[in-house]
Amino acid sequence: MTENQYLPPADSRDRVRTFMTSIQDEICAGLEQLDGVAKFQEDSWQREEGGGGRSRVIKDGGYFEQGGVNFSEVWGKQLPPSILKQRPEAAGHEFYATGTSMVLHPKNPYCPTVHLNYRYFEAGPVWWFGGGIDLTPYYPFLEDTIHFHQTLKETCDRHHNEYYPVFKLWCDEYFFLKHRQETRGVGGIFFDYQDGQNRLYRGSEEGSPAAEYDASLPATKPRTWEQLFEFVQACGKAFLPSYVPIGEKRKDTPYGDRERQFQLYRRGRYVEFNLVYDRGTIFGLQTNGRTESILMSLPPLVRWEYSYHPEENTRESELYNVFLKPQNWLEAPPQVGVYS
Amino acid sequence: MTENQYLPPADSRDRVRTFMTSIQDEICAGLEQLDGVAKFQEDSWQREEGGGGRSRVIKDGGYFEQGGVNFSEVWGKQLPPSILKQRPEAAGHEFYATGTSMVLHPKNPYCPTVHLNYRYFEAGPVWWFGGGIDLTPYYPFLEDTIHFHQTLKETCDRHHNEYYPVFKLWCDEYFFLKHRQETRGVGGIFFDYQDGQNRLYRGSEEGSPAAEYDASLPATKPRTWEQLFEFVQACGKAFLPSYVPIGEKRKDTPYGDRERQFQLYRRGRYVEFNLVYDRGTIFGLQTNGRTESILMSLPPLVRWEYSYHPEENTRESELYNVFLKPQNWLEAPPQVGVYS
Repeated sequence: MTENQYLPPADSRDRVRTFMTSIQDEICAGLEQLDGVAKFQEDSWQREEGGGGRSRVIKDGGYFEQGGVNFSEVWGKQLPPSILKQRPEAAGHEFYATGTSMVLHPKNPYCPTVHLNYRYFEAGPVWWFGGGIDLTPYYPFLEDTIHFHQTLKETCDRHHNEYYPVFKLWCDEYFFLKHRQETRGVGGIFFDYQDGQNRLYRGSEEGSPAAEYDASLPATKPRTWEQLFEFVQACGKAFLPSYVPIGEKRKDTPYGDRERQFQLYRRGRYVEFNLVYDRGTIFGLQTNGRTESILMSLPPLVRWEYSYHPEENTRESELYNVFLKPQNWLEAPPQVGVYS
Repeated sequence: MTENQYLPPADSRDRVRTFMTSIQDEICAGLEQLDGVAKFQEDSWQREEGGGGRSRVIKDGGYFEQGGVNFSEVWGKQLPPSILKQRPEAAGHEFYATGTSMVLHPKNPYCPTVHLNYRYFEAGPVWWFGGGIDLTPYYPFLEDTIHFHQTLKETCDRHHNEYYPVFKLWCDEYFFLKHRQETRGVGGIFFDYQDGQNRLYRGSEEGSPAAEYDASLPATKPRTWEQLFEFVQACGKAFLPSYVPIGEKRKDTPYGDRERQFQLYRRGRYVEFNLVYDRGTIFGLQTNGRTESILMSLPPLVRWEYSYHPEENTRESELYNVFLKPQNWLEAPPQVGVYS
């Protein structure tokens, strides 16, 4: 019997788990080097209904104020409703899910917050990869934004010409705060429900730029499980080169109370996004996940202020007017720097 | 033709709106007196799809660090899905909703945060009152908790013998953080979908203490629109006597960095509740409400800390072990004060 290359191999779970834990190790080592002071502290945990994980937290460091890098592997009787709505074929089947996810909040307001999550699901007849990475600066630099996107694009391009264009638009769509009409930051890439057998865009926004762009493409050649796994591994490995040079360049930028207060205020948007919209957070809370690990993404200190608006012609207003709108950073970068 | 006393009177909207704005005025005046320093600043706003409101914010006061008291009145084509699920008869009908809501965050960690919301809906064949009030102390005092509940009970008892027992249990059920297995605070009263024609408990938790207690009662005599409106007015008027004496008693209690840090940490739970569970917040965000007014409930400064646990035998652990569990404050108050 020939193995169907469009199905997961027999050892799929072992192989993905091994990758997810090793990328956690690799990223933590790289981030400790960037930090220079603090080390990650690890908690291992078990989940009653099945599975467990290891959560690593860094805090009060030279670079990081607080951040977490999680690995988890969970299984159970059935996926929660929020996912079954998207993949009804999984209803009534046991599921397996593994992934790594991280959010890191630097101290210096000139250093951006960064998030990464890659995940893998199996449930009865279906399986898929998902995840992404996105950058949330407070005082953004166009050259940093371009470096970040360029690194992601090069990684994507080695696997599929249309990954970056589609997943970049999907990221702008997903990391969007509808109630603020703002992107969470300057984006990155995001994808979900990648099983190789369908179109690249599998989101639910009809008529969105990502949906329309994807619909304009010729049907994608089916991709095998191995090809998708290779792509996700490459994405994980692209994390350090996409982020660390930005941190190195900005970590000693002097700042004062104005920048700090603005950073604390903007961190509120991160909380709003994660608690109101984030799929991973909702999945975790709905599946009786480990709350402390799920909410490790929340910033250490946050400020809310009623009806704040940045003063015109400042770096703060430039963040809103230029960087928190979807932009084509690589092909048609916006004009910036007028006020900085 | 005889008027059906179980339907709203012809001038229902005018009368409820007038009450909602006057209770906003009355409460703001009382809170300014408690604060002694700051005054509420008002913003009036219009909602594009219909309606508007007036938002009042107090900040950097003698008593309040930040707080908001909102009035709003909105109408539109159809209620959002989250409400239609509960009241399917409203589908396809225009709706009208008005209410007042407030959250107030004191500076002193010995003073509790307090929330109040009363609201009124009409949508085609259905109408209802809902709302409640609940108290969230950081360093709680049993006598304050009893005073708060006693005031609410006396108010309720003047309208229906079973209002306080049912609505107190419902409050414990509603203001509960499942992912933390904690109540938000020491409770109060909460009710929803009160149209006079059905049982007092109209929640969705089968088998909860509130559901079971309500099911054990004989069927309630139908209550008229006027009776319910009188009850809601009395609830609004009970706010100042339930809260202000607590604030007066505690506002000059000395505190240090330990209490301040704990207060900032516990405020995180308020954010988690409001963004993950709160019906009013979700309704507001789903109906394109005014984001700044909806999120006025969020605290001015908040802290998250991975895996924090209070030290045993402290006032902080007493909060968790005693006050953040449902208690029968009036009939069987828990043992407290051992550690304080």
